This record gives sequence, C-alpha cells and structure tokens, in this order.
Amino acid sequence: MTAGLFVSFEGIDGSGKSTQARMLRDHLAAEGHDCVLTREPGGSPGAEEIRALVLNGAPDRWSPETELLLFTAARRDHMERTVRPALAAGRIVICDRFADSTRMYQGLRGPGLRARVDALHELMIGDEPDLTVLVDIDAEVGLSRALERGGEGRFEAFGADMQARMREGFLALAQEFASRFAVIDGARAPEAVAADIRAAVVARIEARGA
Amino acid sequence: MTAGLFVSFEGIDGSGKSTQARMLRDHLAAEGHDCVLTREPGGSPGAEEIRALVLNGAPDRWSPETELLLFTAARRDHMERTVRPALAAGRIVICDRFADSTRMYQGLRGPGLRARVDALHELMIGDEPDLTVLVDIDAEVGLSRALERGGEGRFEAFGADMQARMREGFLALAQEFASRFAVIDGARAPEAVAADIRAAVVARIEARGA
Repeated sequence: MTAGLFVSFEGIDGSGKSTQARMLRDHLAAEGHDCVLTREPGGSPGAEEIRALVLNGAPDRWSPETELLLFTAARRDHMERTVRPALAAGRIVICDRFADSTRMYQGLRGPGLRARVDALHELMIGDEPDLTVLVDIDAEVGLSRALERGGEGRFEAFGADMQARMREGFLALAQEFASRFAVIDGARAPEAVAADIRAAVVARIEARGA
Repeated sequence: MTAGLFVSFEGIDGSGKSTQARMLRDHLAAEGHDCVLTREPGGSPGAEEIRALVLNGAPDRWSPETELLLFTAARRDHMERTVRPALAAGRIVICDRFADSTRMYQGLRGPGLRARVDALHELMIGDEPDLTVLVDIDAEVGLSRALERGGEGRFEAFGADMQARMREGFLALAQEFASRFAVIDGARAPEAVAADIRAAVVARIEARGA
C-alpha cells in the first residue's frame, strides 16, 4: 500500500483555488489515483454543522477566540472522520483551505492571536499537509473575481485593503513554512495554473517514493 | 462598587445542585444582592446553540477531543457575554456547572485527556470561580433521583458505576482545589443543604470584604 498524500490549497477569495483543487482531483483520478476532495471549514458531517454555526449570523456573533475554538473543533472532527482515515488507506487527500487559513485570518484579527492559534493547533490537531499549494493572485483581481461570482460573502465583505493584507499574510506563511509550500502564480489561464500545480504534486509524490 | 463574586455549583446528576443554585439566587436576591443565575454548557445565546449541537444526536457523534473543543468554545462565549460583564458590574454570578465538570467528565473519558483539558483552559479561558460548591451525594441516591426526574438523559445514561466514578472525580477535584471548594452534604432536606451553602457564600463574601 502506498502512503497517502495530504495536499491543501490556500489563497485569497477569487484566487481560483477551489477550481484548481477540483481540477487536480479530476486529473489525479484520471491517472488512477484514489483521491478525496474535501474542504474546510467542514469536510465531515459534524464539521459542516459547526461551519454553518460559525458562518451564519452577524459577523460579530463570535469573538475571534470563540471562532478559533469552533474552527478547531470542526478541524478535529474533519481530521478524525475524513482526512486521517483516507490517508491511512493510502489515498490522496486534497483539502480546500486548512490550518494556514486559520493562521492567516485569525493572525490578522487580533494581536497575540497567532500565538494562540499555534498553541491550539499543537495541542488539539498536530497534523500538517505534505504539500500546501498557495494560488497567489493580485488582491484587486481576486476581489473583483469573487464579487462577480457572488459566494458566501462572509470574508469577501472585508474589502480590497483586507484582501491585500490577506495575500501578504499567505505569502508570509509560504516563507515561514517554505518546505511544504508551493507558491503558484494564479493570474494565468486555469490550464496553465493547473499544469504548475500538477508538477508540484508529482514532484512531492516522487520525493516520497509513493 | 463592590467586586463581583463568581460561585459555581458542581455535583453528580440528582445531587440537587440546580435546585440549590436557584435557592441561593433567591436568597441572595431577597437580601438585596444583584445576582445572575446561569448554567453551563450554555448561559449565553451562542453558547446555548453550541450546547444543543453537543448534546443532541448520538452519544458517539463527537470524539472526546472535539466535544472538549466545543464545550470550551461555549465557555469562552459564556464568559465574554455573560459572566465577565456581570462580575465587572459587581454582580454575584451563580453558575450551574463550570470548568470542574469538564475536568471531571473528560478526565474519566480518556487517559491523558485531563492534561489537555487543563492546557486548553489555561490557553483559552483562564477564569476560575471564587467559590465552588460541591453538592455531594451517594451515587445510587443521585442516580435514582435523576431517573425519577427524567431530564436530558445524556449523562444519566452512564449508569450507577459511572455515577460513582463521577462522584469520586468531583471529590478529588475538591481536594486538588481545596481553597475554592466547599463540599456540602446533599443527602439532607433541601433547606438544611441551602443553609450550609449560604454560610459558605457569606464566609467568602466577608473574606473578600465585598
């Protein structure tokens, strides 16, 4: 049995990361790999219920700390019920957003919160992806794409300045965790972006001998 | 303005702690104290929603770790929205269950989980009651009272042996945190129990000079 591979996708809204996650899954499945496409927050029945509790309602319904605890509860359930069993069965898990989204968002929300995010992750989760694909795109472009598309509106509402800070936050994480990040230029045709992502995944699979 | 006082009630199901919490509130209010009676899990609109998410559904719906995160999220919201504002306004907060219930229940559920409970509490909550009233009662008596009454059935279902372990767990916590615990014999008429609890609260108020 080959070892599983855990690939996360990160990027600001409108970066195309969800499209790219699906394209990667379709490509790997067509090549005969056993893949699971999942997402956070959510990805298991319980975690999806927690997602609804966090994302519905007024934006100030939960404090940053309470929201962090709810997202961590959802992540714990998602890892236990979906991700770890699939990896243990040798499958490739492709996850649309993971802990780096929490690090970035909560890190921007309050001073000192990033240290709590890290301590909580170490205490209750522990897992990290084998590969994190950051689909990087200019903040203005991402925002206009996200607004065109509509969507949940929960995070898009923060505006262009916030989008720019989020992009910087993700790029800083890519430097902090350079060994598992692949930064991909998302300002191109989807097929060109997808080709670069496939190359990064293949390199990771070959490096692991899977 | 006098400083607030934070009193928690703990005890196994059927111990009478909820009745005693109400009796204490009624007594203190009649004496002119500004009191808030609240409960956990719950005690704020958001925390009550999290309570419903945890307590409804199959018993194995959440792992001990996910349940711990959800209870901690509910506690954080309860502290922010209900308990801390009331204490800051000089009120007496009477809380039916608090962190000692989590320490006891989760501590019984899995080896090593108590250490995680403590680390999580320190990281995300921090607060402790000024006084914790443990209404102590024989496990068999508590179970038969709880079964007579009906109730939510979530924890009562564990049976007499589990009730006995829970009682032992609470008594061990009373030793561990001896300076804030008052252990009250609950196997008496409610008025006799209430009188002992009032004496413990008055002693705490006088000791604080409030």
